[in-house]
Formats: sequence, structure tokens, C-alpha cells
Amino acid sequence: MLPPAPGKSTSAAAPSAGEFGRIDRYLKPLAAGFSGALGLTDDAAVFGIPAGHELVVTTDALVAGVHFLPDDPPADIAAKMLRVNLSDLAAMAAEPLAYSLVTSLPRDIGDDWLAAFATGLAEDQRAYGIHLLGGDSVSTPGPITLSVTAMGLVPTGRALRRGGAGPGDLVFVSGTIGDAALGLRVLQGTLTAEDPDPLIDRYRRPRPRLALVPVLRRFATAGLDVSDGLVADLAHLCDVSGRAAVIDASQVPLSASARAVVGKDPRLLSTVLTGGDDYEIVFTIRPTDRDALLATGAEVTAIGRLEPDGVPGTVTVLDASGAPLKLEAAGWTHFQAGPA
Amino acid sequence: MLPPAPGKSTSAAAPSAGEFGRIDRYLKPLAAGFSGALGLTDDAAVFGIPAGHELVVTTDALVAGVHFLPDDPPADIAAKMLRVNLSDLAAMAAEPLAYSLVTSLPRDIGDDWLAAFATGLAEDQRAYGIHLLGGDSVSTPGPITLSVTAMGLVPTGRALRRGGAGPGDLVFVSGTIGDAALGLRVLQGTLTAEDPDPLIDRYRRPRPRLALVPVLRRFATAGLDVSDGLVADLAHLCDVSGRAAVIDASQVPLSASARAVVGKDPRLLSTVLTGGDDYEIVFTIRPTDRDALLATGAEVTAIGRLEPDGVPGTVTVLDASGAPLKLEAAGWTHFQAGPA
Repeated sequence: MLPPAPGKSTSAAAPSAGEFGRIDRYLKPLAAGFSGALGLTDDAAVFGIPAGHELVVTTDALVAGVHFLPDDPPADIAAKMLRVNLSDLAAMAAEPLAYSLVTSLPRDIGDDWLAAFATGLAEDQRAYGIHLLGGDSVSTPGPITLSVTAMGLVPTGRALRRGGAGPGDLVFVSGTIGDAALGLRVLQGTLTAEDPDPLIDRYRRPRPRLALVPVLRRFATAGLDVSDGLVADLAHLCDVSGRAAVIDASQVPLSASARAVVGKDPRLLSTVLTGGDDYEIVFTIRPTDRDALLATGAEVTAIGRLEPDGVPGTVTVLDASGAPLKLEAAGWTHFQAGPA
Repeated sequence: MLPPAPGKSTSAAAPSAGEFGRIDRYLKPLAAGFSGALGLTDDAAVFGIPAGHELVVTTDALVAGVHFLPDDPPADIAAKMLRVNLSDLAAMAAEPLAYSLVTSLPRDIGDDWLAAFATGLAEDQRAYGIHLLGGDSVSTPGPITLSVTAMGLVPTGRALRRGGAGPGDLVFVSGTIGDAALGLRVLQGTLTAEDPDPLIDRYRRPRPRLALVPVLRRFATAGLDVSDGLVADLAHLCDVSGRAAVIDASQVPLSASARAVVGKDPRLLSTVLTGGDDYEIVFTIRPTDRDALLATGAEVTAIGRLEPDGVPGTVTVLDASGAPLKLEAAGWTHFQAGPA
């Protein structure tokens, strides 16, 4: 007689029994709160969605040495991975439901790493009301590679899209911009800040703006989350909406830490506006909704407007004197700043 | 003014404009047939599911050098990746809907590779009626790493589970068993076969048994797909169902190629029964449904039964004389054959 094998794999190069045991021990409890995960005993998860709702599905992958630093604390890596996906759900005005997780881990990774990683996931599951629904755990001879497919719910027809912004719409952004990009430069040793911890924390722990979902559903005509950089992401919105935007650099909300850094070296304003990893929401509203939006007390700031004309898909950034600002997009391989 | 950036990423280490262009060129057309993908213009896909149905969600990852050979043809890698997921949907008696794809690719991978990979995906999308819904494309300093989260639909409450098999239920398996495991050994150079191509093809191109879904919904009391090996996967079913199984090795269906190989070296029967990568469905039915099942003409074979007693989660394999067979589980790191 043969005992049951302790897990599931796609090939003979499966993790060892010990590795399966570890994965079971650390990851299975994360699925306990979602009945559709079937306790991870089956080939797939099975669940319905409430009547009158649509499913919102987003996927993001992170590679050690590319998207995070290999010696980042595992709980921070877990938080970043989950939160970049949750930010996409927030950007679509969806509420979190469940997520699938792929871990590709070197064979020699320690129990301590996996335990801390799972603890980070568990904390964020509680904080954001999402549960593990399944996934796959494989070993790799390469760097730690993680991906999440996150699912959320939105009332049918109410998902927030990038298209839909009209001429004259006002451009708003949530929270503060630039902290994460400056924090990354502090970690890389290319920037010294008097108060670096809040900047580093924003880089390591994005804050998905799920609390903004009711406000977005009520007011936003278009929106997305800021991952590539404020200017680039607003350009995405303009591109899909077929509009041009003008924003005032002096109106872009900065944290106290970022303001101190930019005050000492104004060239860093370019990093703030184009650096990315903000995971704030940039969105548009009709001008007539401005007062009602601000009356909600949501942490959002008006930074510009969509022009009645202008080249679709373009963003013009004005300095405090109203003159177009030239931006350096240093560090970006795919973002090419054109003539201002 | 700034032109729109050509894509989306999670960090400053984003693919270059050229890489985004390639991904757009090769992967975007794969989403054209699924309206919920929103043309891949937004942060997420958005779609409803039909009333009276549940969503079935499965995730599998493949790593070059671990789950496929690095110089395997890219279209075969695409087919394997999609089909292992489709096999999980078939095992749950679900029909394919859409999938999310993560590609982690070395920067120096050529256009030819990506084009052939996308062609393989497109062919399978047509063959199996599934579409790309979104995903992420990142670069990696490590091996090619791919993952798919596939979604399917099943009438509410009709998903096929691993639990649910009762005492006396008959054990059936679809198709033929062992071809892929023998094919892998041919590719690895540890086995010579007179007719190796069908074996290699089964290793490289799993055949998800989606055509069996109506039959499974009608008759199966429990089931799963055979990826870890027939004996190990049947043991999974027994474990979750709380039953013991006895199967007759001589009844396990072999292809002509596999029969020839095992005829020359009977020790390879162990490879056939435990080797894995079959992607057939092993399932149970009530004995009273046997004739009706066989009358459907489905390509399925009775190989054993669930015992009224016996240690739950165990599988006993009998040889042609009715004596318990000792199996070697060579090549498996997580499958431990106990005393027969």
C-alpha cells in the first residue's frame, strides 16, 4: 500500500516532501477564510459572485533584483506584492475578494524567510479583507519570483476605466506623490534625506487606496493607479480618453519629507513627478462635482484639468510661474520625455 | 508635452519601449476575443459570469530547466503551460473561459522565441475556446518563468471534487497512462524506444480532457487530473474521500508505444504508474452507472475499485496474478512508496 503523496506538482522536478510540508504549513492557513479555496485540497478554487456584480481581475509579478531588493524584509516583499495588486483593484473601484499566488523560490530558501513572508501576507489579508484562493509553489534556480492574480468585485457597469474623461474635467490625485521614488534613491545610496524613513516605507509598503473606492464610484469619470509615475500614468488616462491634460507642478501634493528633499534640490521635482511606485489614484471628475468631492473629506488634491483641445495622450506640466516645465525622466527606460 | 508611455510596470526596472512594443504586438491580439480583457488598456479585466454558474480558478507555473527543457520549442512550452491549466479545469468538470498570463523573460530573448510562443498560445486558444484576459510581462535575470491563472465555468454546485467517492465506487481513467513519463526519459537519454515520437509528443503536449466534461458531470463521484502519477493522484482522491483503493496494473490502459517499451523491460511499469505528467482524468463512479458510462463511448477504462474498508488515503496495486505489486518511485523526490 502507498501513502498519499503530500501535494501536487506539474512534473517530476517537484518540491520534496519537506518543502510541500512547509508550503502547507505557511500558506494553507491563508486560505482558511475563503470557502471557495476548498481548503486547497482540489485542483482549483470554486466560487460564485453576487448577483449584480462583475469580477475584476488583475495580475502583477515581482522579481528579486528587478522589482524589489533581494535582502528586503520578506514581510515587506509580501506586502508590496499584494498591495500593488490591491492598488489595481482600487483603481478600478473594486472591492477585494481573493487572490491566487505563485511563488518561485530557490531551493535553499530558509524556513525563516517563508514564515516571515506568510506573516506579511496574513497581516495584509486582515488589513484589506482579502484571502488566498490557491496558486502554485515551484522551485527555481533563478531569483525569487512572485506573482499574484487578485480578484475583486464591482457593481455591474461601475468599474472605473481609463477612458471616459471629458474636456474640462478636473484632475485629482490621492495622498502624496514622489515618496516612494525618493525612498528608492535613498536605499540605492544616490540620495540623502534628513527624514528618510517615511520615504523608504512608502517604497517598501505601498498603500492601496481602497478606502477611496466609494468616492471613486460616486465621482470619477476616469482613473488609474500611479505606478509608472504621475505624468506617465496621467498620459495613459489621456491616451485612452483621447484628451490632453495640463497640471500645475506646484499643486502636486508632497509629504513633509519629500518637500524637504525637493526644497534642497529642486531638480528632484522631476523624480517626484515621473519616478513611479506611488500607488496613489489619479482620476478625473466633472467640474460641477468638485465641491461635493471635497466635502467627503477624502485625501485628494486637484492638480490640473483636461483641455478642450490639445494633442490626445499628452500631459503638459506647468511650473509655479505658469511656464511649461522640462522633465528629466532619468532612470526610466521606457518613458521618453518629449519637448515641453 | 510628454507622449504617453507605452505600457505599465511596477517599478523603474521596466521593460524598454521596444520590449513593450513586442509584448503588445505578440500578446495583445490574444485578448481580442474576450471583451472583459478591455483590450488590455486598463489596470484589470472586468467581466460577469452567467447566472447559475460558479467560477473555477486554477494556477500553474512552469520554470525552464525545472518543468520544461530550455530548448523545447516555444510553441510546445506555450501549449504545455496552457494545457496543464486546462487539465485542471477539466478535472473540476469546468468549461474554459479566460486566462491571465505572467511571462518572466530574460532580456535577451529573441523576437523569434516570443513570436513562436504567441503562435502556440493562439493555436490552443482556438482549439480549447479560451482567451487571454490580462497578465504581466516582466524581465528576469533568471530562467524563463511562466504562470497561468485559468478560469472556467461550472453550473453551481456541479464542480467535480476529490472528495465524494463512496465505498464500492469503480475507478476509471481516461486515455492512456505513462506515455509522457516514458517520453521524458527518452528526451533525457535514459530510455530507448522503438517508436519514441508519440511518447515525446505526450510529454511536450498534454491533452486536457475537456471533451470528457459532460461525462464527468453526469457520472463522476470524485476525480482529479493525473499530474503527479496515477497512483499518487488516486491516493490524493482516496485521502480527501477517506477511502482506500485497489487497482489492477494489468487493466491500466497503455498506448501501443508504451506497451512495446514495457514489454521489453517490465520494470518500466513502475514508471508508467508513478511517472506523472499524464494529464488524464482519474475518477470514480457508482457501480450502477458502469453500463451507462461505457455506452457514451468515452475513452475511459475501468482499473479498480474503492474498498469498503482499508486504510484511508492508500492505493494497493495488484499485478496480473492478483498479488500486491511493489513500485519503485525513482525520480520522485516527494513520493515515497511504502511496503506493499
